[in-house]
Amino acid sequence: MSDNSVVRLLREFVAEREWSQFHSSSNLAKSISIEAGELLECFQWDEEAEPMRVQSELADVLTYAYLLADRLGLDPDTIVAEKLEETRTKYPVEKARGRSSKYDEL
Amino acid sequence: MSDNSVVRLLREFVAEREWSQFHSSSNLAKSISIEAGELLECFQWDEEAEPMRVQSELADVLTYAYLLADRLGLDPDTIVAEKLEETRTKYPVEKARGRSSKYDEL
Amino acid sequence: MSDNSVVRLLREFVAEREWSQFHSSSNLAKSISIEAGELLECFQWDEEAEPMRVQSELADVLTYAYLLADRLGLDPDTIVAEKLEETRTKYPVEKARGRSSKYDEL
Amino acid sequence: MSDNSVVRLLREFVAEREWSQFHSSSNLAKSISIEAGELLECFQWDEEAEPMRVQSELADVLTYAYLLADRLGLDPDTIVAEKLEETRTKYPVEKARGRSSKYDEL
Repeated sequence: MSDNSVVRLLREFVAEREWSQFHSSSNLAKSISIEAGELLECFQWDEEAEPMRVQSELADVLTYAYLLADRLGLDPDTIVAEKLEETRTKYPVEKARGRSSKYDEL
Repeated sequence: MSDNSVVRLLREFVAEREWSQFHSSSNLAKSISIEAGELLECFQWDEEAEPMRVQSELADVLTYAYLLADRLGLDPDTIVAEKLEETRTKYPVEKARGRSSKYDEL
Repeated sequence: MSDNSVVRLLREFVAEREWSQFHSSSNLAKSISIEAGELLECFQWDEEAEPMRVQSELADVLTYAYLLADRLGLDPDTIVAEKLEETRTKYPVEKARGRSSKYDEL
Repeated sequence: MSDNSVVRLLREFVAEREWSQFHSSSNLAKSISIEAGELLECFQWDEEAEPMRVQSELADVLTYAYLLADRLGLDPDTIVAEKLEETRTKYPVEKARGRSSKYDEL
């Protein structure tokens, strides 16, 4: 998201509707959990799910995650890349290969 | 994310560890919910939260959301932009301005 | 929970620590989501989970659910029984038998 | 829930519909997270929520929590009481009074 074009669209959308008053960090964190629950509902009883429904719910999770990042002055891709560097040291290839254990159990 | 550079980093990270076997869509959807809960925990008793902790948990949510998008062959920014167009028609500016009601209650 | 004995224990525990100031309905709802995420984490990569860990996380979900019910003046068993009557009419045996579909798709 | 009467009602309801095939522990844990998200949605933009809606969503969380407890052969009230004893030692009154900090920060 080098040019932040989607984030700019989201910002305009929110500004036009005067919704930033509702978008405290805490409310956006709640919104992410709520939408994550709706995404999970696609898989409630089945490993397989309707692709269009999953796409729509995943888009909602991402939307609120982008809005929270923007509110905190953070770039989504940058924080993902930074966190990946931390995770890399917790899960060295030779220990973690083919295993789903948590780092403290490797 | 025009060049998908972060997604490429994530793909390599997962491939080196042979973790794609664990990354079914259903497991990634669970992971998003789990990380969304950890993000929400930053705000459990307080509207304010430690910025570094929020950044770290938000990065985890985004990481799994990017992995799920990638698994489904979707670009995160594109699906956010597409969903925004749908939301725009549900929440016309003149009806939604300054209100947090759901579209069916506007 | 005819005699409410566990709820009484929870109330005393909270009162002794002067924690009811933190237990707004909204904070308790967040807490239920957070603990539900920790419960789900037991099953993140596997259908099977450690029984003692599941028990411990399920107890946390129930604890906050009981506290929210108590704050709202509701008895947990009573509201479950009442909701079951509603669900019964949405999912008649002859239509719902052996099917996991939502009521509006039966 | 000394006589388990609600759990008995839930068991009958599930058996009549032949739904226990869907109620793996993992699916019930997902269901608890999904319903916890719907409960949280009552408080998405506001500290206050409609009492009847909260009651209905809380009943759904409790229903799946009771079903998971039952599947694992556990009594809800008993595991809440047992967990409370553990929490008591982590949060001694003199340290925890009036504070919302986690036990490792007290």
